[in-house]
Amino acid sequence: MDAGGKVRVEVERSIQQSAEDISRSIRSLLAFRGIFALNMVSSPGSGKTTLIEALLTRYEGKGSVAVIEGDIETEIDADRIRRHGVQVCQINTRSSCHIQPAQLLNAIERMDLSDMRLLIVENVGNLVCPAEISLGEDKRIVLLSVTEGDEKPLKYPLIFKTSDILVITKTDLLPYVRFNVENVRRAARVANPAIEIFELSATTGEGMQVFLDRIESFGAAKRPS
Amino acid sequence: MDAGGKVRVEVERSIQQSAEDISRSIRSLLAFRGIFALNMVSSPGSGKTTLIEALLTRYEGKGSVAVIEGDIETEIDADRIRRHGVQVCQINTRSSCHIQPAQLLNAIERMDLSDMRLLIVENVGNLVCPAEISLGEDKRIVLLSVTEGDEKPLKYPLIFKTSDILVITKTDLLPYVRFNVENVRRAARVANPAIEIFELSATTGEGMQVFLDRIESFGAAKRPS
Repeated sequence: MDAGGKVRVEVERSIQQSAEDISRSIRSLLAFRGIFALNMVSSPGSGKTTLIEALLTRYEGKGSVAVIEGDIETEIDADRIRRHGVQVCQINTRSSCHIQPAQLLNAIERMDLSDMRLLIVENVGNLVCPAEISLGEDKRIVLLSVTEGDEKPLKYPLIFKTSDILVITKTDLLPYVRFNVENVRRAARVANPAIEIFELSATTGEGMQVFLDRIESFGAAKRPS
Repeated sequence: MDAGGKVRVEVERSIQQSAEDISRSIRSLLAFRGIFALNMVSSPGSGKTTLIEALLTRYEGKGSVAVIEGDIETEIDADRIRRHGVQVCQINTRSSCHIQPAQLLNAIERMDLSDMRLLIVENVGNLVCPAEISLGEDKRIVLLSVTEGDEKPLKYPLIFKTSDILVITKTDLLPYVRFNVENVRRAARVANPAIEIFELSATTGEGMQVFLDRIESFGAAKRPS
């Protein structure tokens, strides 16, 4: 049992190490190409695909955008994104509960990177596992919809700690649910004092411009035009 | 690399095997004691704790109920349940994205099982990882709130395939979101033709009695009174 335990730890460490190496390769590749990359994480159904669609609309005619869709199964989200006429690559992670750096690198290598300005990665809907590993992104964005409950940053602290931006989504539903926005802001800042927080509703459009402006400013900072 | 791959597979198989052995032990222990056990799984914020509170109210005065709360961190849910005056045990899974059978067995062994009639296990909020392993439960209940989107059974098929019951929650929010209940029913039945499906709102109470009646009938079937 002791010997088994040791083998397990060593094997896991070597897998982890290799994942971090690949993340660094992705980061270098994106830096070399001047591509700004977002890693979108959240529970299933918090509105990642909808927010990506808003980003695509904002970037229309301003430079090439590509999207990598991570899902256990299906191409449902990729099909939604494809309608916007942008380059889309689907990763089906099958048994993996998050996108592995190796899967992402493999997808990037199959894409046309010339003129690419923004790369958006939609991770598997999961508030736990995607927190554990960097995909070499510039900004990690965690979404929390107001229907999920305001205690989530306390219960799932790692994903808030490792994200640069928190987007509170579906604010149009605030009148119908118990959700204290201030509690969420406070708890998210305990996990990560530097986190930037936005509130928006894709349905009414409220708060969307402020968020999109900020993302565009990040992207512009990476590649001076 | 080949050697490393082989070691990894073997180690994973032996860990998996041991987890299945422990699940069987839990099942035997619960059968011996005549305890009916539920494993509640869903995304974060689908309403697992709220549904457990409804079950506790139903069982009041009808026999001893215990709850095991699985969370990455915090005792927030356990504190909510404790107010109902029932036996509660908190498992903090830390880095694990679901309750491991060994963690559950360890928790059960610390509980008072005399007179226990119903054991409710609230798994970590995660629509992926808890699907992969049995905890020795009698019924696995997956919750899907109407705010999460109606394509979820297509995107996360395994958890619907391995669950006995699907509860569509927060139906009071149906007027404010795009969510086709029939699409969900159809997709869930593709994943698992035998799945039983309930729709309810904890806010309005609609559909709650039908669900609670059914759970009570399952429990009664396990331990004839």
